[in-house]
Amino acid sequence: MVPKNRIQEILSEYDPEEITIATLCSHTALQIFHGAKKEGFKTLGLAVNQNTKFYDAFPLAKPDEILRFNSYDEFITKSKELTDRNVIIIPHGSFVEYMGTKRFEQMEVPTFGSRQVLKWEESRDSQREWLESAGISMPKRIADAKDISEPVLVKYNGAKGGRGFFIAKDFMEFKMGIDLSEESYTIQEYVLGTRYYLHYFYSPIKQSGYRVGNGSLELMSMDRRDESNIDELYKLGSTEELKKHGMFPSLVVTGNIPVVIRESLLAKVFEMGESVINRSYELFGGLIGPFCLESIVTDHLDFKVFEISCRIVAGTNPFTSGSSYSDMTEPGMSTGRRIAREIKDAIAAGKLSEVVS
Amino acid sequence: MVPKNRIQEILSEYDPEEITIATLCSHTALQIFHGAKKEGFKTLGLAVNQNTKFYDAFPLAKPDEILRFNSYDEFITKSKELTDRNVIIIPHGSFVEYMGTKRFEQMEVPTFGSRQVLKWEESRDSQREWLESAGISMPKRIADAKDISEPVLVKYNGAKGGRGFFIAKDFMEFKMGIDLSEESYTIQEYVLGTRYYLHYFYSPIKQSGYRVGNGSLELMSMDRRDESNIDELYKLGSTEELKKHGMFPSLVVTGNIPVVIRESLLAKVFEMGESVINRSYELFGGLIGPFCLESIVTDHLDFKVFEISCRIVAGTNPFTSGSSYSDMTEPGMSTGRRIAREIKDAIAAGKLSEVVS
Amino acid sequence: MVPKNRIQEILSEYDPEEITIATLCSHTALQIFHGAKKEGFKTLGLAVNQNTKFYDAFPLAKPDEILRFNSYDEFITKSKELTDRNVIIIPHGSFVEYMGTKRFEQMEVPTFGSRQVLKWEESRDSQREWLESAGISMPKRIADAKDISEPVLVKYNGAKGGRGFFIAKDFMEFKMGIDLSEESYTIQEYVLGTRYYLHYFYSPIKQSGYRVGNGSLELMSMDRRDESNIDELYKLGSTEELKKHGMFPSLVVTGNIPVVIRESLLAKVFEMGESVINRSYELFGGLIGPFCLESIVTDHLDFKVFEISCRIVAGTNPFTSGSSYSDMTEPGMSTGRRIAREIKDAIAAGKLSEVVS
Repeated sequence: MVPKNRIQEILSEYDPEEITIATLCSHTALQIFHGAKKEGFKTLGLAVNQNTKFYDAFPLAKPDEILRFNSYDEFITKSKELTDRNVIIIPHGSFVEYMGTKRFEQMEVPTFGSRQVLKWEESRDSQREWLESAGISMPKRIADAKDISEPVLVKYNGAKGGRGFFIAKDFMEFKMGIDLSEESYTIQEYVLGTRYYLHYFYSPIKQSGYRVGNGSLELMSMDRRDESNIDELYKLGSTEELKKHGMFPSLVVTGNIPVVIRESLLAKVFEMGESVINRSYELFGGLIGPFCLESIVTDHLDFKVFEISCRIVAGTNPFTSGSSYSDMTEPGMSTGRRIAREIKDAIAAGKLSEVVS
Repeated sequence: MVPKNRIQEILSEYDPEEITIATLCSHTALQIFHGAKKEGFKTLGLAVNQNTKFYDAFPLAKPDEILRFNSYDEFITKSKELTDRNVIIIPHGSFVEYMGTKRFEQMEVPTFGSRQVLKWEESRDSQREWLESAGISMPKRIADAKDISEPVLVKYNGAKGGRGFFIAKDFMEFKMGIDLSEESYTIQEYVLGTRYYLHYFYSPIKQSGYRVGNGSLELMSMDRRDESNIDELYKLGSTEELKKHGMFPSLVVTGNIPVVIRESLLAKVFEMGESVINRSYELFGGLIGPFCLESIVTDHLDFKVFEISCRIVAGTNPFTSGSSYSDMTEPGMSTGRRIAREIKDAIAAGKLSEVVS
Repeated sequence: MVPKNRIQEILSEYDPEEITIATLCSHTALQIFHGAKKEGFKTLGLAVNQNTKFYDAFPLAKPDEILRFNSYDEFITKSKELTDRNVIIIPHGSFVEYMGTKRFEQMEVPTFGSRQVLKWEESRDSQREWLESAGISMPKRIADAKDISEPVLVKYNGAKGGRGFFIAKDFMEFKMGIDLSEESYTIQEYVLGTRYYLHYFYSPIKQSGYRVGNGSLELMSMDRRDESNIDELYKLGSTEELKKHGMFPSLVVTGNIPVVIRESLLAKVFEMGESVINRSYELFGGLIGPFCLESIVTDHLDFKVFEISCRIVAGTNPFTSGSSYSDMTEPGMSTGRRIAREIKDAIAAGKLSEVVS
């Protein structure tokens, strides 16, 4: 991990009038650049093997410049190219995944948010420790496949994007479905209900709104992930029948659909966000900026959270120009723009080092 | 029922420059306050046991003041606290449900819309009488479970929010599913098709647009209700298979998804709204303001309406800042804001007593 | 086909200050008129047997005038009524379907876009020739039903709007499902995945953005079609079980839901659009204006395109006021408005004959 004071040293040499917002050209980059431009920042796209021609189609989101690297290692070895441009990097899910947590931690470039959060988010065990100790209800975990007595979701720990995850209703189905070539897996209660991906933003410096700790919690938007092939598989027949034809459900994220939740559940939505933030300060100095609780609402209107993402999620992409929630805070505010606004506010308040690391 | 002249007496003492829009802090309250503030009204949140801290997160929707009561009875006994503030109450589904129709009728505070509609909306029988006599096609009702010969939906009359409703394809399945501890139930044809919740607004005072009677009909937006656990149950397997594992579908509303309908069906959408309004004037002096027809479109493009809601529905919540429909009437118009606009227009025209009761 | 020089002759007599945008009152007409009015055009609604009263409800989209014809033949015989008004017709799916390709080709009124495209779009064979030769991957076609060895979709060539299409998993199911009274059908691999209807706009005259040929390609929005009864059928039980009750899935489009796609798939989205445009110039002089690739994304994140629509599609209707994509090109830009903008830009550049035919 780059020590905090190294980042502060770099920041102290930055020209606050010339800050450049940079991110990897994938995932939520369009939204991040779009928001940064609206807030008046310079923007820099970073690419390794990403095709970036399509950014031309979106002049209000296209970064001012695109810098291409040969590998993710160069984010480490060529970091001076970035700091020379007064770059603040905005991490997103693909950025962290492609870099790998280890390399990301070593990058000597200021990044928005906390780097401490990475190791807590990395494993399902530490996520569970954090969330459950914050009072969040999660799907039960089943240690031994022989104990499966109700529907479970089996997730391979190494799997990318949901391929190979499967649902089993008993040990027999588990044995039928399991791929023994995969190193390890997790078995988790399959909670029946509807999914809501809750997009929060926590500002440690905002002094109004829904106060949490010394800062303020916002709800930006909500989506439902769209997963191939499970979301349309049912049209062909029952999963039981399809298995006979060698077809199995998979959970690969392909897109997102906007949703809203019952207003009477919003109090709980905020309480969960508040607990997660408070606990993050106790555990590792605090989660900063956007995060997402991936939840299921049961037919008893209880929440079960199956995952936390500690940065901007792709589910915010339907809301480039605001959502029915953020419009009640400030019209036209996307999560991407909110990040840029936070950096702008932090610079104005002389608190930039509180929101980057 | 509070007599009309009692309400008019109260209204006559109101200062038209100081009207306060109030509603119960749940359901669609954020949207109602957001709209009222946009139209320049004072706003008052009413709460019994609702947690209202999260309203802090939405400064553009947070009511100017929140008034807490110990019970719903106090809306009756302490009504002077409200009328002293020149309050007009906006009813929504949860408000009416928690108060109960009887108490709601007795409340000596001006409420937006017609109170006569409450008793027509209250029972499935009177809803059916109203809608069918207006020429609206509804799912058939089956009087005797032994006559079930095609898929039916069995709804308990006392059930809250859809829990315990179930689908049966024949008498056998009915017997398997029925909970005999429930007092009464309704059996209704299960219509195959896609659901559209049509959000209308009827103004008795607007003199332009799509004219109905002496007023004007608008289409604000459409949604699809998101129901737990039925909307994601299919991922686990067929309902037949799941029953073996003791898992049954339920229909508890958890949220809403925005939709639009084929443009060629809009003529029929308006004709249905028009008939419902015209018939409401014949039956009880007229439905005023927002209402929703909850419909299914079959694969022959026929509408079947399974319910009417006679006030703002939660399905309007995705449209805080307007919808693809209302944007063609006036940009940025939500149903919540439309209510406030109607009150404003009525005040300006000296017709407030025509839109409140 | 009306010769190009006949259309140019008509255009040469038009007053460029008095151009009127006209379309048939159905499908996407509200959006087209709404957009045309925003861009400052006169608007004319065309109706044969369409009920148009509901246009009154949308003053920002209601055409300035509505002209009623007794039959679709009158679009041919009374074309002078249109050209006298300096009309440019915007074709949409229903317009072309109701007129029929033959009559549409003969109409001596300038229409937006290319008429050459009609014969390429008309049959599944020529669509496949065009798309596959452009490098687009499509679902396999099965020539002989006896060869069905995996799920297929059987489409009747004469069927309207998806009724009667069915899914079969083997020859047995094909025999059970096939309606021998229908003249002809196509059997096509049923691709498992999630559907994305990609709404593009190609301008042959725009000189910036994502350059393709001499013009520029834009991504306007995306939707998922909502089909009755298949989208809600699963709630009742498995398709296998439902067949026993005489209930079969159908694919009749009733509406649309907004979606977004993974950002990492956008490069491919643009490459596909680019190939289709480039190939269209090689084959028939070019596709102009809005078009839609109707695609499935598999769990390997591959695209399979099952159809192309070569004009504005109803899936753009959720985006009357812009989408999360078009907002990054120009805020508030719908496909309907983009068409009007293209005509306006073409007039200003003296290139109207390049975008109408």
